[in-house]
Amino acid sequence: MNGKPLVSIISAGMSKFQKHEGLLAREIFTIATQEAFSRCPKLEPKRDIKTMFIGHMGEAYEHQGHMGAILADWTGLLGIPATRCEAACGSSGAALRTGIYAVMSGLADVVMVGGVEKMTNRTTAEVTEYLAMASDYPFEQYHGITFPGIYALMATRHMYDYGTKEEHFAMAAVKNHFHAGLNPKAHMQKEISVETVMNSRYVAWPLKLYDCSIVTDGASCVILAKPELAAKYTDSPVHIVGSGQASDSIGLYERQTFTSIASSKIAAKAAYDMAQLSPKDVDLAEVHDCFTSAELIAYEDLGFCKPGESGKLIEDNQTRLGGCIPVNTSGGLKAKGHPVGATGAAQVYEVYLQLTGQAEQRQVKDAKVGLTHNVGGSGATTSVHIFRSA
Amino acid sequence: MNGKPLVSIISAGMSKFQKHEGLLAREIFTIATQEAFSRCPKLEPKRDIKTMFIGHMGEAYEHQGHMGAILADWTGLLGIPATRCEAACGSSGAALRTGIYAVMSGLADVVMVGGVEKMTNRTTAEVTEYLAMASDYPFEQYHGITFPGIYALMATRHMYDYGTKEEHFAMAAVKNHFHAGLNPKAHMQKEISVETVMNSRYVAWPLKLYDCSIVTDGASCVILAKPELAAKYTDSPVHIVGSGQASDSIGLYERQTFTSIASSKIAAKAAYDMAQLSPKDVDLAEVHDCFTSAELIAYEDLGFCKPGESGKLIEDNQTRLGGCIPVNTSGGLKAKGHPVGATGAAQVYEVYLQLTGQAEQRQVKDAKVGLTHNVGGSGATTSVHIFRSA
Repeated sequence: MNGKPLVSIISAGMSKFQKHEGLLAREIFTIATQEAFSRCPKLEPKRDIKTMFIGHMGEAYEHQGHMGAILADWTGLLGIPATRCEAACGSSGAALRTGIYAVMSGLADVVMVGGVEKMTNRTTAEVTEYLAMASDYPFEQYHGITFPGIYALMATRHMYDYGTKEEHFAMAAVKNHFHAGLNPKAHMQKEISVETVMNSRYVAWPLKLYDCSIVTDGASCVILAKPELAAKYTDSPVHIVGSGQASDSIGLYERQTFTSIASSKIAAKAAYDMAQLSPKDVDLAEVHDCFTSAELIAYEDLGFCKPGESGKLIEDNQTRLGGCIPVNTSGGLKAKGHPVGATGAAQVYEVYLQLTGQAEQRQVKDAKVGLTHNVGGSGATTSVHIFRSA
Repeated sequence: MNGKPLVSIISAGMSKFQKHEGLLAREIFTIATQEAFSRCPKLEPKRDIKTMFIGHMGEAYEHQGHMGAILADWTGLLGIPATRCEAACGSSGAALRTGIYAVMSGLADVVMVGGVEKMTNRTTAEVTEYLAMASDYPFEQYHGITFPGIYALMATRHMYDYGTKEEHFAMAAVKNHFHAGLNPKAHMQKEISVETVMNSRYVAWPLKLYDCSIVTDGASCVILAKPELAAKYTDSPVHIVGSGQASDSIGLYERQTFTSIASSKIAAKAAYDMAQLSPKDVDLAEVHDCFTSAELIAYEDLGFCKPGESGKLIEDNQTRLGGCIPVNTSGGLKAKGHPVGATGAAQVYEVYLQLTGQAEQRQVKDAKVGLTHNVGGSGATTSVHIFRSA
């Protein structure tokens, strides 16, 4: 592809991530689409948008499947093809990848991708159970392990192999809370210290309450167009120049290693190759920090540092605003919140704001290249996308 | 598109539809893929297949989401992008549409699409509840209506407007059981009479037990390739020349009419226009007969007869093997069975066999053009595809 745009983003929208008391997923999604539509006055949604792909992880939350068609209706696009994509917490990253196929096929010049999840209507026990559906039933769920335990196994091995400390994980939480405080749409709005994290209760050793991302409600969407048509809609498109998606075994028991996610590395390589860019070209990244340890492993899988050196990278503040590679300026899943189906497209929303200079207090100076990294389950799915300002 | 092939089918596979005691969905899916792989010895799946889209409707049956990645692993394709598509009972029709985008995008020359559902491990009450997730929660499920009731409302209105009789619905069941007896992979293998149907107990008036499709287990898959590459893999590809997908309101309460499904008509028009063909060019069709009444309404929505005349069409045996437009030669959802996520791709499997002259006892003579019609829910999603022999 020679670094050429695959597709262009002409607009994006996102609801605040918070408890949306009394609103259904379909209603929360319209908050995101209304923003995207109003950001792009030249877009006539009903006339222009030819298809949509929606990331939605769980039918159980609202006892509601068939979310693609529902959201087409509720966003005023009744009639168009609308399909739900599900790849666990990687659902809207997979929807983005699918939307890229659709635009590039020539069958749909303008496509909406997005995601939504309503989770706060359920108890913690219910949410834990529903999320567990993204792990393996016979070899994981059946034996009672849930996601904090699965990610704890990976974190523990990283500590054993590389000497990473619980404090290093805590630093990711502190950084992401700091970033979230600069993002009015983030769920968490208060700064924390390493001590806050270290003193919080263990959920699954070595992961504590403040190492875990936040259950919340939210929606996000992105409008894609053929690059040749982008100028018709906006003066400041963001081009997607690299796209990778990969799969891995659903259960940890089949993995070659616990300190790296194979699908992340495959997806990243595909995206970098397509973009003809390398990790050092990336000005900012939104990575999948469902747990703080996952953010550190992502640094390594994405090539921001060598294997085992992520602890040092966070310790040196290199991934904080002002560092050499700011990560999760939005607050990340950790502090912005993780309404699972919406997460992948919300990462794109942040990169879109950054690359169009609209990230206000958390703006990365001279940001030209951004990256998103969206993981499903413990890594059975990862998508990586690379973006360039126009 | 001028009737040119969008993509070509180079192989297809399907498990028998039956109770697969003790097998998980992932295991049933491998039965379908093994057939598809062995039908096409020139395909090296691990080398050639670049992505996959899987129709899977319900996480609840096996308490298992994230089915895309699981099926990539279990079919020997670990590593490739693999995404689940969900559009209720229209899931694998939507997966097919998505796979077409992927091939046409130029990013993936060979793509696997398919679907799977394991349902017989659950009680009838559980299955009814899980299927209901494809209807609207606040305005349908909440008030206790389930799919037999929803389709009964449509059937009743058709009877009122057009004088259609319960016997007409019964005739679709009789025909499809007859066809199923000629299909060794169909769940039902015995012929029935109009009396059998009429004497069966009401599920939701006017629909009786024998008007309802069968809960079963099964999987299906189709291998798509760029038309220019098809000859590399097979001497007898089947070309997809038309593709339409559309959405409608999730709940009946928002519909303009009960005697027609708007998404079916939009999807059919899109597919016919793309193929530059009309209903009279179609030699055989697999339509979504989740209930017998739905088959009759499909005749009208697809243009095989005028509105209100489907009763006469079935009465005249025109949709039976030997008639002017044989419908559901596979046995249809009614008698082949309806493992919901697998249904759309299984329809394609039947058309593939017919257009390559491999349908044995149920072969439609000189079949050149086939059509599939896959509906999600009560019609919030429909996809229609048109196929032509090479």
